[in-house]
Formats: sequence, structure tokens, C-alpha cells
Amino acid sequence: MPIILSMTGFAWVCAFGIAQAQDSQQRPENQQKPEARILEVKAAVKEGKSLEIGHLMDRELYPEGVAQLQWYENAKSTTYFYAQGDSLMQASLKGDASLLFSKDQLAQDPAIGESLHYLPYILKAENNRLFMLYGSDILVYNLADKKIESRNSLPESGNWDIAGKSGNIAYTVANNLYVRAAEATESMAVSNYPDTGVVVGANDVHRNEFGIYKGTFWSNQGDKLAYYWMDESMVQFYPILNYLQDPTQVNNIRYPEAGRAMHEVKVGVFDVATGKKLYLEAFADPSHTYIPSVTWSPDGSEIYAVILDRNQKDLSMVCYDAATGEIKRTVFEEHNDIYVEPEANPVFRPGHPDQFLWFSERKGYNHIYLYNTDGECLKAVTPDNEPWMVTSFVGFSPDGNTAYYMSTQESPLQNNLYSVNLNSGKILRLTKADGSHSIQMHPSGKYFIDVYGSSEMGRKTQIIDNKGKVVKVLKEDKNPLDGYITPEFRLLSLKSADGKTDLYGRMILPPDFDSTRKYPVLVYVYGGPHAQLITESYNYGCGHFLRFMAQQGYIVWTLDNRGSANRGFAFETATHLHLGDAETADQMQGIAYLKSLPYVDAKRIGVDGWSFGGFMTLTLKTRYPDVFKVATAGGPVINWAWYEIMYGERYMGTPQDNPEGYEKANLLNRVDSIRGKVMLLQGGLDPVVTPKNSTTFVQSCIQKNIPIDFFVYPNHEHNVIGPQRDHLFQKWYEYYQQNL
Amino acid sequence: MPIILSMTGFAWVCAFGIAQAQDSQQRPENQQKPEARILEVKAAVKEGKSLEIGHLMDRELYPEGVAQLQWYENAKSTTYFYAQGDSLMQASLKGDASLLFSKDQLAQDPAIGESLHYLPYILKAENNRLFMLYGSDILVYNLADKKIESRNSLPESGNWDIAGKSGNIAYTVANNLYVRAAEATESMAVSNYPDTGVVVGANDVHRNEFGIYKGTFWSNQGDKLAYYWMDESMVQFYPILNYLQDPTQVNNIRYPEAGRAMHEVKVGVFDVATGKKLYLEAFADPSHTYIPSVTWSPDGSEIYAVILDRNQKDLSMVCYDAATGEIKRTVFEEHNDIYVEPEANPVFRPGHPDQFLWFSERKGYNHIYLYNTDGECLKAVTPDNEPWMVTSFVGFSPDGNTAYYMSTQESPLQNNLYSVNLNSGKILRLTKADGSHSIQMHPSGKYFIDVYGSSEMGRKTQIIDNKGKVVKVLKEDKNPLDGYITPEFRLLSLKSADGKTDLYGRMILPPDFDSTRKYPVLVYVYGGPHAQLITESYNYGCGHFLRFMAQQGYIVWTLDNRGSANRGFAFETATHLHLGDAETADQMQGIAYLKSLPYVDAKRIGVDGWSFGGFMTLTLKTRYPDVFKVATAGGPVINWAWYEIMYGERYMGTPQDNPEGYEKANLLNRVDSIRGKVMLLQGGLDPVVTPKNSTTFVQSCIQKNIPIDFFVYPNHEHNVIGPQRDHLFQKWYEYYQQNL
Repeated sequence: MPIILSMTGFAWVCAFGIAQAQDSQQRPENQQKPEARILEVKAAVKEGKSLEIGHLMDRELYPEGVAQLQWYENAKSTTYFYAQGDSLMQASLKGDASLLFSKDQLAQDPAIGESLHYLPYILKAENNRLFMLYGSDILVYNLADKKIESRNSLPESGNWDIAGKSGNIAYTVANNLYVRAAEATESMAVSNYPDTGVVVGANDVHRNEFGIYKGTFWSNQGDKLAYYWMDESMVQFYPILNYLQDPTQVNNIRYPEAGRAMHEVKVGVFDVATGKKLYLEAFADPSHTYIPSVTWSPDGSEIYAVILDRNQKDLSMVCYDAATGEIKRTVFEEHNDIYVEPEANPVFRPGHPDQFLWFSERKGYNHIYLYNTDGECLKAVTPDNEPWMVTSFVGFSPDGNTAYYMSTQESPLQNNLYSVNLNSGKILRLTKADGSHSIQMHPSGKYFIDVYGSSEMGRKTQIIDNKGKVVKVLKEDKNPLDGYITPEFRLLSLKSADGKTDLYGRMILPPDFDSTRKYPVLVYVYGGPHAQLITESYNYGCGHFLRFMAQQGYIVWTLDNRGSANRGFAFETATHLHLGDAETADQMQGIAYLKSLPYVDAKRIGVDGWSFGGFMTLTLKTRYPDVFKVATAGGPVINWAWYEIMYGERYMGTPQDNPEGYEKANLLNRVDSIRGKVMLLQGGLDPVVTPKNSTTFVQSCIQKNIPIDFFVYPNHEHNVIGPQRDHLFQKWYEYYQQNL
Repeated sequence: MPIILSMTGFAWVCAFGIAQAQDSQQRPENQQKPEARILEVKAAVKEGKSLEIGHLMDRELYPEGVAQLQWYENAKSTTYFYAQGDSLMQASLKGDASLLFSKDQLAQDPAIGESLHYLPYILKAENNRLFMLYGSDILVYNLADKKIESRNSLPESGNWDIAGKSGNIAYTVANNLYVRAAEATESMAVSNYPDTGVVVGANDVHRNEFGIYKGTFWSNQGDKLAYYWMDESMVQFYPILNYLQDPTQVNNIRYPEAGRAMHEVKVGVFDVATGKKLYLEAFADPSHTYIPSVTWSPDGSEIYAVILDRNQKDLSMVCYDAATGEIKRTVFEEHNDIYVEPEANPVFRPGHPDQFLWFSERKGYNHIYLYNTDGECLKAVTPDNEPWMVTSFVGFSPDGNTAYYMSTQESPLQNNLYSVNLNSGKILRLTKADGSHSIQMHPSGKYFIDVYGSSEMGRKTQIIDNKGKVVKVLKEDKNPLDGYITPEFRLLSLKSADGKTDLYGRMILPPDFDSTRKYPVLVYVYGGPHAQLITESYNYGCGHFLRFMAQQGYIVWTLDNRGSANRGFAFETATHLHLGDAETADQMQGIAYLKSLPYVDAKRIGVDGWSFGGFMTLTLKTRYPDVFKVATAGGPVINWAWYEIMYGERYMGTPQDNPEGYEKANLLNRVDSIRGKVMLLQGGLDPVVTPKNSTTFVQSCIQKNIPIDFFVYPNHEHNVIGPQRDHLFQKWYEYYQQNL
């Protein structure tokens, strides 16, 4: 499971138009007072309402957006659906929206016949059917007959996967996989293992690393199901204790720590018509390989599986015969001396069943390549010598000649939709508004639901076409903080500790900022891979809490150091085998800049972070104990040997191979440096960074008689989410008010 | 397991001579400003060294005492043993002390032949042998031959019980009981159960309530062993999670919560010579009875077992035939509408095998009664119409005519040794120095090791005779706080909220106290049964931390409310079925007194307590949120339905029978009243007041968005003990410094 970015309340990415960062001149290594270039300033609003602590999670502070918005999966129709209160609406590009049914109307359907507590949630809309989830029931609504076609009351189920074309449904219950065929009233058990370590069809194989988010894969025809089969009986248990259940319960999860025994994965194939199953032949020792990707060939005769060695340096694309499970050939291989991290599945090109797209950072930035099924790389679809990266693939035009994808081409701080013509290589930017966009493509490839925000409005939900023209605006939420006091936001760039690389910084100044006064500083840090805190979006990605802290008189500072996301392979891997070193050096460049400012009170600098940011917070505090007066670290990794294999070994190797790197990063070796006020925060049910990390650190402080504060959120996992996050905001605020 | 009194660092009871409290006149119920009578003042010492936070557990702050001091179990010899550094010394009343052996000398013994890491610990000295414990080995040292007679290398064992006369050893390993006969080299398994709920010979049956501290009982002849057999398979598991083990471990303990399923206990009898065993016949439904006491008749032919109904109102003394396990007769019965709480075993009278002593609060104060084995109560040995109590039984003279016991006759704040002549009823006080004494009787009944302290010396260890004359002073530790700044201590009495009962209070004033200033107050509270915080001993029982807080400028206040120990049955049971009500009312009498003092800053009152004191702290804070600015509660009981059956149901009945009482005491119902600064503290491994209590309270605060602080000591059980307690002292100190 990837470490999750913290502190941003509801996920809310919004655009905020700014000029692209410019390169500043090169500076010598570890310069003490690096100059920063202020790239943009958003002026303060000094009059208005105030944000209030204890109410930062109030619903009205967040834009409403459009719930359940999704296309009907049919290239010939422009129908889409969305929820409006308790009603499900149907609309199309041409016509007005109309009520499909309300919750209460649906309750009248003979197949329901009882009041519904809420509007069911659409899982899929395809082939004249709406597949909806209500509790653990899957309701199939026939759009032509306007009635419930079937109600599949499944046992309390973990995952669902619906083959829209056939109507077959795959689902898991506990550790086993089942299939309910479209017309059947009974399910077929694909597996039937006791709960002793084998898990079938789970959506969290390899703990969701490598972009894995599901465990079942329907063929395009919807008649055969490929699925993950995982044996984790050799993986040690980690107990998660829930004091809030009565009696108190233990949930023993299998947690594979770096350097220790790893689960073994294979791929099964289930034929719905015959009920037969088979397994893909092992490509290499399963105790030493990952299978990050499982993809059907367009005709359903082959499966392309990505096999990654545990060392994460060697990847093979392997083609299997889906009917026998035998290896047909290795399509291509990829090696990187640092690591190769496949995060997206290959995508077959419509109309060209012998061609697929593949995504690789082999030239330093993630780009799209066109391969044929013999393993020949036909071309770089995007210009792989250019220093920007493809962030995700969106879709193909039906003719297979145009690919749609998101990239940072405009700016590393933006995420825009582009099209590229596979023949001409011509690239067109489709999202005209600067910012970070979220896209759903229509199956025709002609239209796109585009959601983004800006500081002027809360969120815009619109449909654009494949030329970038806005076809229809579905909703424009006003900025919920209109009328509120707003601090001054500054976007900056400054040089990394390597003297070469540009880093982005975000500074928030108190609304009544007076440059002749001195202000305390709160540094908010994440610093780990796969996350970027500063983006061109609403307030440069800053959440309400940091904004509130600026309102309370703090200068709030954030810097995306080397190792963080969307800046390319060299930037990300500068930290390899030595997590904490380059990141800290870069953060200290930010601190040197802050200290050079006359209005910064250098004796009152605090640092806060969660997860990798908790690791960074304690690393900064223990390496520079006199720089940071106060530190608050949530769910921190204390010892990378206690973090999971896939993520941990990618960045740090194994503890056996890299003992020096592990020891240098191990915060237990730095407890003696703790002084001043340090608070650790921990989700009591955290299955990601296990509570043993923070707890062991705290115990070490106790043993050495070093004051330390510690607070556990007993009902939370890897962060404090939902309305109870307000309690955390209050705790942080009080802690900094009392101590900084 | 009884709730353990907290906050007193090392256990250290010392005498400090003061006049006995006098009755003051009666006052109306709930008077607002009760007057207090200052009974004694110990003046401050304003000059000297200061106690320092972070060093309150330093060894030199505590008197050394005499380690391993114990009599040789032989009425004809006055030999005793003690340790001096790494040497074991032997001495007698007549002669000088001589070296028996040093650790290194003992290591030379052929039976050892390896260096010893520490001096073995004497378990028993009897019949020419020293039985010593080293690791899990029992060493038998022959005092005549001066060499190791046998080394019994036992498996990692839980308990040992040595029959001094025969040399037979009983011990437990995990859940089973074994016997090693005196001459044998192999052990006999008395039981052989898998670890699925049956526990044999355990020393914590009924969770150590009713004075139970062992699970095996040798007959006087040492040839037969009675033992507890407990089935707790029906008791729910409570998981204790140890994050500090790698991998993280769960220890599932059986924790019987009030009103839920109880373990079932019976008594086995094992004959060492034949290897045969039998069980005592059940007197009543074992799912509804306790067996608090198992006592052999002097000749080993009978066993007297106390059977207590689960309602704790009905007790039967039952005589069994030890050879068959059959009930011979019910000797007597005792009933109390509130509860009867047997805490001591009957004691057979030497020379009168048909007579035994029994201890009962039936007349309002614990007194000694003489019974015959037909169940006739022959007399009250101590005057049971007098309002003082026997606190423990010490022993009999060999002729059975004189009984030695501890009592509060001198003062409820003292614990002195007395003799009583069974024929004349004449009582003689043997410990002449006022205070709280700790006694070991010589088997002749003529001499007593007497340990006590005072403010002038750290601890006195002496031998007195049965007239109270000091025969020999073994050690006089000087007061380790000689030369330190000392606050002023005041002993007070004031009226309970009932307007009638005298309560004792202890006030500590800052050393530089100035009655024209205003001081913040720290109230330290326990308030539960079986504990008394204020005694006539060193600083009236106050530990170093409270003394330190006074040194820092706080007035430190403590009051023993109704419900606390050593004041008789009515005083203790005023709280019955409504824990928290009378206790709180009494504490508020103390607060009213404090508020009436011109030098008390009534806006700055804090309250602290652990265990029952944690319950009291939060009860006070939530019932009087504006009285207490700061509250710190360690290991608090939050809901009595989550505390154990034996203790919980004695004081509260079952949740089913007393729902109103449980709901009124349930602190989860009072979370809404929390305001200001409240910190909960919890031992992460606490098997007494389970972490579910504090954790659930904290979660309720989070849910209601009420600020709360919480700190877990991951490596500690029901309190923070040993050197790491300094960390807790520091945490408390900082919390009060910052917030009060």
C-alpha cells in the first residue's frame, strides 16, 4: 500500500493559473543563504470571515461537485448519469437532464419493495444496464424497461468487478473469489480456501504497490476472468488491536517487512461457461517475483503479464496462452540499475491487435512507447527526450490513431489532458485552463468530463471535446471561502542542495503580514516519493488547516524536495538507498532561505508531517535539533526495516544488503538528539506504517528519560480522516500555540 | 487483582510520630466552608539542596534498608540471614554477624561451577537448609555441610512453594503444576492440560482478590499439597499487545468483566508419596462461587475451605476430609447484606487443634474471633465493640495463648504490632515508636524484626522482643533527604460530606510559603477501597514527586475520603453500589476548605490520580469542570462494567442488577463536560484496568471534538514503575507547569 499523502482534508485538486517556473542560475553546493525566485504572489484579503478551529471539516467549506457523475459506456450515445440529492439523473450532450428515478421511486420497484436508506451507487453503466451497489447487494437496472432486472444479494463482500458486456459479476468474500453469471441466481465459487493464508481475487495484492488497485480482470468479452491468487501464509502476522469493539478484538494482518518473507502470487483464469480454471505458468521463482500487471489481449486468447524481480531492477513482459496458461514468449525486458517501477498496464491499440502502448521512465521521464506484440519498440509516442512526464493514460480514439493522456508538459505543477496522434506525433493540449485536472473520457474519445478548481470558484465540472472546446458546463461551485480572510500565497523556486535542481516552495503569509515584524514559521513537509504538495491549483494545493495557521499569525512553508513526484527519474532517485539524506539537505535549503528573511523569527520554527512526512519531521528535528523548536510527526516510519517490502526495498534495498543506509535512516539511533517539544501522532489501527514504529520510538525516549508527547487516534488507520480530522487540527493548533 | 495504589515510587512506609486525631464537633451535611482542624505541622526547611525533576527515582533518594532479611525457621535458634552487597550474612541475637558465603564463593561449589551473575535470593530457611532461587533454578544449600545439596534446574517457572519440613517443592510451568520431591531428581506432573483454559496451581486465582497470593498449600507435614484448579475457558479473552517485541506479539489474557462469565475453581489434593490426586467436592455451583481460602488442619487430615457466593454476601467455612475430598460439615456461615470480604485464612491455635482464629468485620471493624472446629464462636479475642481494626495477623506464641497482630488501635493512621492474651484478653502494644510498622515474627514468638521509618531517619531495621523492648538495631539509614529543602507538611482533619465522619487531609506548602500570596493547588487523589494515602509515616506517606511539586510552588493536597482503607466497614461501604458519589462529595469538602483559604488561588486547582484515582480524577473533573482547571488521570476505570468481576461486583453489584449505579459512574456519559486541559495516561500492557477504558474515553472525546491529551507508556502495566517513572514525573510536572 503506498504511503498516503496527508493533511489535505478532502482530496481537492483545483487549478490556479500561474506562469511556469523559470530556471534560475546555478548555485554552489550547500550554499547557506540561497536566494529564492518568487514566481507568483496571490495577494491577501484582509477583511472577511475567519476560519475557525474545530470547524475546518465543516461541509460548507468544501465545494459540492457533482456526485456519481459518469458516462454511459456506449460510443454512440452521449448519455451520462449523476446524482442530485436522492435522485439519479440522466442527461446527454444534446438534451436536458431528466429524472431517471428517485430513491423512493426505486424503492417501489417490485424487486426492492422496501424503503431504501440512500440512493444506490452506480458501479457501471453499460449495455442497457445500470449496475448499482446497495449495501452488499448488486442491483441491475434495465434502462430500457426502467425496472430492476435482478437483485444479487451477495454476502458481505470485499470487491466487485462487473463485466459490462456479459453482465457477469466477480466478487470476493473474505479470502475467496466467486462469480455470479449474468442470468444465474446462484454464484460459483472460484476458490474455497480456509482462512490460513491464501487469498484469491483480492484488490490489494503486493499491498497496492505498482498501481495495483484490483485483483480481477475480465476479458473484453466478459466470459473469462483472470485473477490474482496470493499465498501469504509465510508472511509474519502483525496484530491490529481494536479497543473500541467489545470484547476487544485483534485483527491479525500479514505484514511483509523489508528483507523478510514475501507473499507469493500467481494468476488464475476462470472460464464462466465451463467453470474450469487454470493457472498461468510461473515465469520465475514466485518467492522472488512480483506480478504488477495482468492484461488480456483484445481477442481474449492471450494474457500479457508483467513480471518484476524482487530486486525491482528487472522487468519482463510475458505473453501467456490464456487457454493453457503456458508461456508463449517473453515480449520484451527492461532493466534499470536503480529500479524500474511499472505503474500502468499496457494498452492495446484499437484496430491494431498486434500493437500496444507501454509506459517507461527509461529515458528519465515517463513517456509513452508503441510496441508490437513481438516486442519491437516501434516508436516513442510522446517525445521521450523531453523533460516532462506522462502522469496517466486516459484512452484511445476508437480508430486507435489518437491517444489521450495527462502530462506535466505545461508545467511540473500542472496536470493537463493532451492528445497525441500516433502517426504524426502531433500533440494537442485539451484542457485550456491551467491547473490540475481530473478527466473521464467518453467511449467515443470525443468528449471528456473535466473537473478542476481555481481560487475564483470552488470547482468546475464541465464537458470538453477533443479539440479542447467547452461543450457544456455541468456545475460551477462558487469558492466556499469567498468572503473569508485570505492569507498571501507565494509560489517560489529555489535551488536544491545539489546546486543545480530547481525546487518549488510555497509560502503563506499571515493576512495582516507586516514585514517589519518577526513571525514564527510552521514547516509542513512530506518529502517522499509519489507525492507533490505544491501544485498549480487552489492555493497551490494548500488545505484549510495550513491556511488557518497563517491566519493565526504563522508563516507556513512547504517545499517539494528531491525524491518527490512529477519531476522525473533522476529527481526521484536522488534519495535511493539513503532515504532522508537528500530530502533533508533540500529542506535545509528552504530553512536557510527562511532564516535569511528579516521577518522570520528563526528561533521559532516548527515542523510537521505525516507518514513519510513524519519520518522527515523526526529526521529534521533529530539532525537539526536546535533549528526546529517544535516537531509534530504523524504515523512516522521510524525504521525502514519495519516498512513493507515492495516500497521499502525499491527505495532502500534490503536491510541485509544496505545495512549502512538503514542504520543511518533509523530514527531510533537519533533519539538522544531529541530536545524541546516533540509530539508523535498515531492511528491506532494503522495497517500501513504500523504503530510499532511510533510506539518503539516513544519507548526509547521514555527509557532515556527524554520528554516526548504522543497521541493515539484509536479509531483511525494511516491518517485521521472524516469529520474527526477536526480534532487533529485542534490538537496541532494548540500544540503550536503553546509551544512555538 | 486488586487495584494498586500509585505514585509512591518505591514502597516506603515510615513512622512519623504525631498526636492522634481528635473528633471535632458535628457539622451539617454539605456545608460550604468546612473548617479543618490542623492536627500537626512539620515546619519547612527553607535552605538546602533541591529535588530535581528527572532524578526523583535516583537510588540515593531512598533508604537502603536490609536486603533478604529473614529468620531461620526454628524456634530454638535466633539465627537470621541478610544480604550485604554480594554476600549472604548469617547472624543471631547473641553473636556477631559472619559471612555465610559470597556470590563468588558460592560459585565455587561443585554443584555450581560457573560464575554467578548475582547473589541468589533466599526463598526459605528451614530444617538446616537454605532454599534459594537463581534464575529458574532452586538451589538447596545445606547449612551444616556448608555446600549445595541439590540444584533443581526447573523449566522457566511461574511460582515456587517449598515445604520446608519435607523439602518437597511445588512449582508451576505455564498452566500446569509439578512437584519435585525432596530427594528426587525428576519432577512429577500433577497436571498436564493443554493451554486451553485450565490453569493449575496458579498464584492469581480470582485475580488475587480476597487476599489470595498463592495457589499451592503444603500440609504442615509437607507431604500433601492442596492446590487451586481453575477453568477459565469460559472467560473472554482480552488481548494485550506488545509493540516492543519483534514481531509484535499479542498476549491473550482471560479477563472476567463484571456481570459476564466467571472462571470456575476447585481444590485438588496431591499426595507426594503415592502420586495420587483427588478433588474436593463442590460445595455449590462452581460457576457461582469463590474459594478465597484453603487451610490444612494441623494434623493434615482435614482441609478448611472458605466458600463465598458470587454475590459476596454469603460465606461458608467448610471442613473437608483431605483423604476423600468429601465435605464433612459446614463449620459456620457468615452473611452480610452489603458484602462479606474474607481476606485472611483461619489460623489454628497451637496446642488446641480444635480451635482456630477467624477475622471478621461483622461488628463494623475487623476483629479476631476464636472458634472451635464445631463452628462455635468461643469469644472475641480482640474487643469487637471497639472502633479500631485488626489489619493483619502476625503469629501465635508456641503455646497458643498469645496472638500477635497489627492494628489501628493507636490511630487509624498507624499500624502497630500488638499481643493479646487469649485467656485474659489483655492487649499489649509492642511497637513503641508511633508509625506504620512492618513485622516478621520469629518462630518462637519472642522476637520480631521491625522495619519502619520517620522523618529523622530514612528507615530503621531492628529486632524487638515480645514486651516491645528493642533487642538489637540492625540498621539505621539516615534520612536520604537530610540537607534538602523541605516543604511544610500539615496533617488535618475535616468533616465528611455526611457531616459526621472525620476525614484526614494532608497539605504540603511550598518551602518559601508566604500566606499573603496565592498558590495553585495540586490535588492528588486515590479514593478507592484498600488504600490509605495519609499515614503517620515519613511526610505522612507523601512521595518525592508531590514533595517536589510543593518545592516548585504548588500547594499539594490529599484527602482520604469515605471508601478508603482502615476506617471500618461503614466508612468503607458508604460508597456501595454508587462508586464515585460519596468519594466525590468528600473530596469537594476538601476543595471547599481549600477555597476558604486566602492563600489558595481557586482558579488554579488541578487534580491527579491513577487507577481508582484516575476514575476519581475524571469523575471530579466532569462533575465539577470549572473547579478543576487541569486533570491528569492514569490507568482510569472509565466504565465499571469493564472492570473485573470480584472487585467490581463487590462494590457495584452486577451491571444487570445495578444499571443505574453503573450508568451514573460511567465516565463515557460525562465526556461532554470535559473542558480545559485533561490528560489520560495508560500503561500499554495494563492487565488490571485494561487500555480499553482510557482508549474508549479518548475516542469519545475525539468523536465529540473535545480536546484531550493522552500518553501511553508502552512497556508498562498498571503503573509506571522502576527508573522509567522519572519520565512520568517529568510529564506531570511539565503538564502542570504549562497548564495550571
